[in-house]
Amino acid sequence: MSGSAQYQDGVAYVGGKYVPIAQAAIPITDWGFLRSDATYDVVTVWDGAFFRIDAHLDRFMRSCQRWRLNPGLSPAQITRILARCVRLSGLRASYVEMICTRGQPPWGSRDPRQAVNQFYAFAVPYVWLANEEQRAKGLRVMISDVQRIPPQSVDPKAKNYHWNDLTMGLLGALDAGADTVLLVDAVGHVVEGPGFNVFCVRDGVVITPDQGMLEGISRRTVIEMAAARGLSVQIRPVPTDELRSADEVFLSTSGGGVLPVTVVDQQSIGDGTPGPVTRQMVETYWAWHADPAYNLPIDYSV
Amino acid sequence: MSGSAQYQDGVAYVGGKYVPIAQAAIPITDWGFLRSDATYDVVTVWDGAFFRIDAHLDRFMRSCQRWRLNPGLSPAQITRILARCVRLSGLRASYVEMICTRGQPPWGSRDPRQAVNQFYAFAVPYVWLANEEQRAKGLRVMISDVQRIPPQSVDPKAKNYHWNDLTMGLLGALDAGADTVLLVDAVGHVVEGPGFNVFCVRDGVVITPDQGMLEGISRRTVIEMAAARGLSVQIRPVPTDELRSADEVFLSTSGGGVLPVTVVDQQSIGDGTPGPVTRQMVETYWAWHADPAYNLPIDYSV
Repeated sequence: MSGSAQYQDGVAYVGGKYVPIAQAAIPITDWGFLRSDATYDVVTVWDGAFFRIDAHLDRFMRSCQRWRLNPGLSPAQITRILARCVRLSGLRASYVEMICTRGQPPWGSRDPRQAVNQFYAFAVPYVWLANEEQRAKGLRVMISDVQRIPPQSVDPKAKNYHWNDLTMGLLGALDAGADTVLLVDAVGHVVEGPGFNVFCVRDGVVITPDQGMLEGISRRTVIEMAAARGLSVQIRPVPTDELRSADEVFLSTSGGGVLPVTVVDQQSIGDGTPGPVTRQMVETYWAWHADPAYNLPIDYSV
Repeated sequence: MSGSAQYQDGVAYVGGKYVPIAQAAIPITDWGFLRSDATYDVVTVWDGAFFRIDAHLDRFMRSCQRWRLNPGLSPAQITRILARCVRLSGLRASYVEMICTRGQPPWGSRDPRQAVNQFYAFAVPYVWLANEEQRAKGLRVMISDVQRIPPQSVDPKAKNYHWNDLTMGLLGALDAGADTVLLVDAVGHVVEGPGFNVFCVRDGVVITPDQGMLEGISRRTVIEMAAARGLSVQIRPVPTDELRSADEVFLSTSGGGVLPVTVVDQQSIGDGTPGPVTRQMVETYWAWHADPAYNLPIDYSV
């Protein structure tokens, strides 16, 4: 079956079955859609192996707990489902998403506790948040005046699909000619963008926001890589002006790892090219993919 | 076809086809799900007629515009689709939802502007936000310390599925033995609950929050009914203490119209029974359903 034509664009697990991504659908009545009552996580497959799947599964289970969702599956069972999606697709580089939704309570009830939660998953070709040219030259980022949904409303540490603020900010940035967007919190500190965390480098110190954003696994990888390379790391609030005047800026994401940023709000960062710390982080990120401590090879022959 | 067995639980319009609600599904890859990038509106059918459908369609089109979504249909075309869903179901009392989602951009693109937006709809049996006993005795409401997502992040005047804060607040209230929940804004003013606006009555004056919440059509109906009955209406911030010490409290929603609240945070409101203004509003709400100015009868014979 592996890599057969109808599966090569991706494979989903829905309603307990494996289907080509183009046929994968969820009930319109699932509160995961009608109330965005859901959580998810994304793990990547590179060169035929999951990267840091344990960290992603651990966070997924914690996100489920935070929203009082129960996927009804253990991390080991989820791993088998994800691996089967990838195997059926034949993809050696893949973007793999696991999802748990509220489902729906019995008809007429509005009590989320009475709902039967649902688990869905899919594996599609690896998604790059930046294309090849953008990765080489660096991204142009705009800081939006849309504020990221605050932790007092929705806990950003548990992954969720509440992206309206990110999407509206992104549309504004794209209209203004930027490649992507960064959102701020209520006091004007930079927090995160659509699908990524942000870092800046000042005098050799690597700095990233401490609150108001998702604690990305790629963010954690950057923090660990920086420490392994002997760099100082500061995890603290980052005012917008500090980001704009930094020596280097880069993003971390499962959609491509470490991505250089060379323009913020139409001003060049450093000399306008990806800086030495950024390049070191990019290189280390891909090198770590070959480390057995972080990767779990998929058996495509089963 | 009208009212046939497989349609009587509801009918949906998905992918350009009319299907029984139990079979209605949307692509798992639609950003309406994966990014909650969608808007919607709900109109009710009572005694075989839409109630204030023009107001709902008008708001739906404005919500679409606000999120830069295009349903690709005129209000008249949408009305025909909704009416056909209801007609096929045979339901004389129905909860009818119209939805526009981002759809998805071409593979690999993360630009929302390149997506083909989708329109979905469904008609299901009328949904009551409170059961018969709750409507007679009044609801017990808890004020949550979860803050409603602020307007600086997501414009609450354009309907959206960003309900995590409402859902988490509701779970806390249900656990504490209340029937439903009210959320506050960052400065502690009451804003709204899951699917409803809130009113209180003090010395004969009807008061409702002015910002931070959806401007419900049922809320507008209450404001108009109060004016028609010669009552003063104040639209302004409502501190939690003012709500707790009010003479009367009630909710407005398409899920049952005007619903009395007799307990807030375990304290009785007034004498603990639905008050005179509340009862007058309930009565007027249903009386207005017979007014041709507000209703549009559905032709079930077509």
